[in-house]
Amino acid sequence: MSGEFNLIDRYFSHRQENRSDVQLALGDDCALLTVPTGYQLAVSTDTVVLGVHFLADANPADIAYKALMSNISDLAAMGATPAWLSMAISMPKFAQEVENNATLGTDDWFTENWLEAFCDSMFTLANQHNLQLIGGDTTNGPLTITFTIQGFVPSGQAMTRSGAKLGDWLYVSGNLGDSQAGLEVILDPSKSNRPHAQYLVQQHFRAQSRINFSQSLRGLASSCIDISDGLTSDLLHILKRSNVSARLNIDALPVSIQSCDFYGSMAQAQQAALTSGEEYELCFTVPDQYKTEVDKLEATSNENFAKAYCIGRIIAHPELTQQPEIQLYLDDKLLNSNNSSKLLTGFDHFKS
Amino acid sequence: MSGEFNLIDRYFSHRQENRSDVQLALGDDCALLTVPTGYQLAVSTDTVVLGVHFLADANPADIAYKALMSNISDLAAMGATPAWLSMAISMPKFAQEVENNATLGTDDWFTENWLEAFCDSMFTLANQHNLQLIGGDTTNGPLTITFTIQGFVPSGQAMTRSGAKLGDWLYVSGNLGDSQAGLEVILDPSKSNRPHAQYLVQQHFRAQSRINFSQSLRGLASSCIDISDGLTSDLLHILKRSNVSARLNIDALPVSIQSCDFYGSMAQAQQAALTSGEEYELCFTVPDQYKTEVDKLEATSNENFAKAYCIGRIIAHPELTQQPEIQLYLDDKLLNSNNSSKLLTGFDHFKS
Repeated sequence: MSGEFNLIDRYFSHRQENRSDVQLALGDDCALLTVPTGYQLAVSTDTVVLGVHFLADANPADIAYKALMSNISDLAAMGATPAWLSMAISMPKFAQEVENNATLGTDDWFTENWLEAFCDSMFTLANQHNLQLIGGDTTNGPLTITFTIQGFVPSGQAMTRSGAKLGDWLYVSGNLGDSQAGLEVILDPSKSNRPHAQYLVQQHFRAQSRINFSQSLRGLASSCIDISDGLTSDLLHILKRSNVSARLNIDALPVSIQSCDFYGSMAQAQQAALTSGEEYELCFTVPDQYKTEVDKLEATSNENFAKAYCIGRIIAHPELTQQPEIQLYLDDKLLNSNNSSKLLTGFDHFKS
Repeated sequence: MSGEFNLIDRYFSHRQENRSDVQLALGDDCALLTVPTGYQLAVSTDTVVLGVHFLADANPADIAYKALMSNISDLAAMGATPAWLSMAISMPKFAQEVENNATLGTDDWFTENWLEAFCDSMFTLANQHNLQLIGGDTTNGPLTITFTIQGFVPSGQAMTRSGAKLGDWLYVSGNLGDSQAGLEVILDPSKSNRPHAQYLVQQHFRAQSRINFSQSLRGLASSCIDISDGLTSDLLHILKRSNVSARLNIDALPVSIQSCDFYGSMAQAQQAALTSGEEYELCFTVPDQYKTEVDKLEATSNENFAKAYCIGRIIAHPELTQQPEIQLYLDDKLLNSNNSSKLLTGFDHFKS
């Protein structure tokens, strides 16, 4: 775009220290990088679009945080360490002060301040993960941001979605449901009087990925995914890729005290935990032989609040369908399909 | 987006053979890849946006070709070999046949046929370069496509923009100006009666990058860039990064017979060659000690039509300004700044 080089200089260059594995970053035709010996490269791409993933009045710092964190979380799902980031940003022209107070265009909210706040938030999060911006593209267009993130994982030790086996235990890495509760407050201001409403909104905007915890799972977990669309949706990806089914004990789902207070009961909070999205906790499976070791991770993790909670087990497909399926259990009893469907398609207090 | 997995399955999966350095491609949280020992990774990102880089009535096969070729060309500029591709595509919902012939929306041109033609073209070009699609993202939104391309270069042998030195010879890798001539025909249909008009339009849409030729320059060229914005614009990037100036002999610029016929004289064709964009020839500099070897590349290149044409030399900054500058020479005479400006800001027959 016109002035692209000025923009890059002002907002994207000289914001970070150079990693030793980056021989050339912004400003040439390509970045030049070195992957350490004995490591595989893990690569993931995510796009967020104005009007689809966020609205014009959203806080640009929140948008940057969530877009980048969901990308970082993809690395966590594989047990990889973040290293390099490319960013493509299409954006409208900046709204300018208009001398005669003429009406500004529809993009009058898009200012240099917006971009500055976005970049500050992005670089803060990137620096926390030793993640260096190594390239990208800046164009005119409807506001759209694509991150491509790269990280390292010791060769052969990445956790994929396809390794779950019959008899493996099913785990999640932390409390689920806070993000859902926060979203409900955002969508329905009448809920902002409920206990911990603002705390939960904050959890929705600033959920944390499990980069450190996931690295302690390498060699122990047989499969792993990050929970971005909701536990049941994401677990189904593991089940399909691994060609197995799962028993999931709803009353074993970890939930926060704040979510329990917000929903009024632990049972309701646990129902919310089934489908709450954008939390970036991990869902993973563990062979029986490693269960004791993984259970100990509850106490020894070096990342706040991350623990391994056993919530079920990998089982054979139901005889009738022979398809990957999640069987929901409550009080050690299998829910009938009618009740399961209600839980899996969202919960009543959200629809009302 | 809704139906994302079906889309990915239908259009993007199972289209290519698996490279041996790709351990996991589409369908998990990340791709898993191995860079060969002794090589650096070269990474570049490019975005094209509907209404900015192409129009709704453009041929989707041409759009895919140009977007991907410009990305491949970034690897050529460094002397790198293509390997992996990530693609993020935001797109409107497909226009559907409407039962009652109701008026379709503004995006009625965007159909599954469009996406299919785009993908066919993209995969054809990718396969020609042994370039594997390893991941991406598919979202709803205004049509925007971001490619992130990765390639390998032997460690320490990449050509950058910053290595040009005083006395180095200035080269380009092939004829310049065809793309500009083709664009003029597209923008001004009255020119379609000129000689070779359709050939030149085709050259505009299907310019080729110099992946093979660039690899033969490794170890010989001191700096290199691909010509995407136009020779003088791109050469200036080398000059600024290397902190040198250049003498450029306009009458040494290589042009095609077709371009000469189209413009009516070699002199006019050479003027067009100064600013013609999106051609993907290389502009590079060569230390005197390697000049003889590089000149031989004219005959021994294994890529059609690629040769090394010496068009000038790297010189010190003009005494007055001490800034990077291109000094244009015609018939061995320095053009005065007035005439140079005219040439560098575009040519008259394009403006009229």
